[in-house]
Amino acid sequence: MTTETTGAREEARARDEASPLGECRDRFLLPEGMVYLDGNSLGALPRGVPDRVSRAVTEEWGRRLIASWNDADWINLSRRVADKIGPLIGAKGADVHVGDSTSVTLFKTLAAACRLRPGRTAIVIEPSTFPTDGYVAAGVARLLGLELRWCDPEDPARAVDEDVAVVCLTHVDFRTGAMYDMGAVTRAAHDAGALMLWDLCHSAGAVPVELAEHEVDFAVGCTYKYLNGGPGSPAFVYVAPEHHGALDQPITGWMGHAHPFDMDRDYLPAPGVTRMASGTPPILALTALDAALDAFDGVDQADIRATSLSLTGYFIELVDARLDAALEVITPRGPALRGSQVSLRHDHAYGVVQALIDRGVVGDFRTPDVARFGFAPMYVRHVDVYDAVEQLVAVVKREEFASPSYDVRNAVT
Amino acid sequence: MTTETTGAREEARARDEASPLGECRDRFLLPEGMVYLDGNSLGALPRGVPDRVSRAVTEEWGRRLIASWNDADWINLSRRVADKIGPLIGAKGADVHVGDSTSVTLFKTLAAACRLRPGRTAIVIEPSTFPTDGYVAAGVARLLGLELRWCDPEDPARAVDEDVAVVCLTHVDFRTGAMYDMGAVTRAAHDAGALMLWDLCHSAGAVPVELAEHEVDFAVGCTYKYLNGGPGSPAFVYVAPEHHGALDQPITGWMGHAHPFDMDRDYLPAPGVTRMASGTPPILALTALDAALDAFDGVDQADIRATSLSLTGYFIELVDARLDAALEVITPRGPALRGSQVSLRHDHAYGVVQALIDRGVVGDFRTPDVARFGFAPMYVRHVDVYDAVEQLVAVVKREEFASPSYDVRNAVT
Repeated sequence: MTTETTGAREEARARDEASPLGECRDRFLLPEGMVYLDGNSLGALPRGVPDRVSRAVTEEWGRRLIASWNDADWINLSRRVADKIGPLIGAKGADVHVGDSTSVTLFKTLAAACRLRPGRTAIVIEPSTFPTDGYVAAGVARLLGLELRWCDPEDPARAVDEDVAVVCLTHVDFRTGAMYDMGAVTRAAHDAGALMLWDLCHSAGAVPVELAEHEVDFAVGCTYKYLNGGPGSPAFVYVAPEHHGALDQPITGWMGHAHPFDMDRDYLPAPGVTRMASGTPPILALTALDAALDAFDGVDQADIRATSLSLTGYFIELVDARLDAALEVITPRGPALRGSQVSLRHDHAYGVVQALIDRGVVGDFRTPDVARFGFAPMYVRHVDVYDAVEQLVAVVKREEFASPSYDVRNAVT
Repeated sequence: MTTETTGAREEARARDEASPLGECRDRFLLPEGMVYLDGNSLGALPRGVPDRVSRAVTEEWGRRLIASWNDADWINLSRRVADKIGPLIGAKGADVHVGDSTSVTLFKTLAAACRLRPGRTAIVIEPSTFPTDGYVAAGVARLLGLELRWCDPEDPARAVDEDVAVVCLTHVDFRTGAMYDMGAVTRAAHDAGALMLWDLCHSAGAVPVELAEHEVDFAVGCTYKYLNGGPGSPAFVYVAPEHHGALDQPITGWMGHAHPFDMDRDYLPAPGVTRMASGTPPILALTALDAALDAFDGVDQADIRATSLSLTGYFIELVDARLDAALEVITPRGPALRGSQVSLRHDHAYGVVQALIDRGVVGDFRTPDVARFGFAPMYVRHVDVYDAVEQLVAVVKREEFASPSYDVRNAVT
């Protein structure tokens, strides 16, 4: 290591020492020697999770068995988790429900939203959204006899007219990291009388989200990325309070009933957002998520955003300075326009990502030519950014990206 | 304890020693001193689960992070679990999918089944089914513009005519433990050109189920009762192979896509039962279930049934002999007509159940007047049956059932 690189790395360390989230990394159990830039796909393990899950398995399930629905308050676990998610998305916990997979949650929410605009005939969605959103929206459109209208991702408002029931967009793009102006787009939807549904999968926990302030109608998001809930952890849904009363979602399971244990023959929806529930909640998964969310205790959303922008900005700066345009930055450079990831285009992006992984820097690949790096502000440091770019320079210089064929299984989001 | 009762308890012990499943109890971690007769609500903790879940959390998630989708083969975990469930329900694993809650799984399956009978206008369901089945069926009927036709539980075939698309029944009734003749009812549905969908929540793992042999079209079941997958563990669905090709379920998420990682804009369903998938699978919950199912290794379904009937028969025999009709047995006495539970009616059933719990015998209450006792053949012993009836006799004799008001939260199925 030359004096020059040592000095630059020291500068990264100094940035970390000045970071308001400097203490937060210790709330996670991260493997030694790995630079983990894939928290936008699977968040790291929060320190409090293993013991909490272990206790749920051996004590609550194993020793107290069915009594834990009361004694361990499993029956309200989903509610407690929702109360922790609310503040992270600018919402009250009472307007949030947690329980099913993201795809299932989106299905229920989008169908319920469309039913609130009877007579309107279209759902607006953007073609570059995360695919499951498009697939689910197509399924909902077909079931309800609606048109699926693909918008221009650069200008979604242009597709919105008086026929549109719901505009469904991803706040931060999974591929590029580009972020919509939530307030402006929501206003445009409302101006046309449509409802707005945001997918927060790549926002919640990394980007401040102000659902209530922007008068958003609905939002859905996953919890296993920046919220660190564990692989396949359950998704959340937000429903603005003014829609609770008329909310009519299609998967009318017993947990969404007003009196589930009365075992009535006919369905009577629960008051409030609880009617978004369907089946028995996944207790072990919710337990992991519940413990994971404690990592956010006392953390200011503004500090998360400042740290995120500092990390992504520093990464872009180093890529610009050291890689001589060998990879193209496709994430917007304007801070207001980007989430918490930076994506680089390269003809051999898959090989680049694989070579980096071999060097201990974990990002991921998105077809066809994108190397994607997530900067989870809670635990990624500037020194990680520095080390990642060092390795990236070496990979490009030595052309280590000549690689075996792309293995799709490595691409789970 | 008198010589007489000592002798009777020894007889129960002798039955346990002669039981073909005698060794299986040791595969579970059961609390000392508790007689657990609520495995039909939440199955006991299999011995292999805690370590396996702990490893998934700390090693697979914590240390290997995103790489575990490949290294720990998370991507195929749902498939491996399905392969273990298949033999327990008389099916090939390739015809089974596992992933969402029971209510969500039923919704997808019932909708897909109805779509296979276009032009037919009704769903047949029985009014005493577990309520979520009726609620979900009503939701599907409304979405697809179908009639929900309530049948006579004693004679469901009478409601089936050429208008019926799907007959949806619960194999073993959650309240009474009464069991349908799967072969006969399925044939009646087929004779009218309808498809048959069985809810196996109270069957799988306790009662032999032969889906392929009876040419059943669809089945759905939960895994947290007799399959011991843990609280809120994911449900399974069976789809007969002849329906795979035309299967068209409404929640078209990316995990049901033929090439999920190609990130195509349009949905192309995966071949086979995989198209029943929607979102990212719940890995921690599936891990617990995967380990739990190993408790069935090498266990013969016929031995499970024989043990179950021996336990329930013995319970009925002791109730008859010792309780002088103080509680009415509402479970069918004919072995062919009952599942693995026995339900007793009593005006103060809630109080009876609470008093028994105070005495270390855990059953549960079902509104309005049913005390329900599940006999999970894998770990319940005849000596537990004996002890349970001893305590029940004491509760009735001392009228310990005068109780505080019924707490619905104690009734989670």
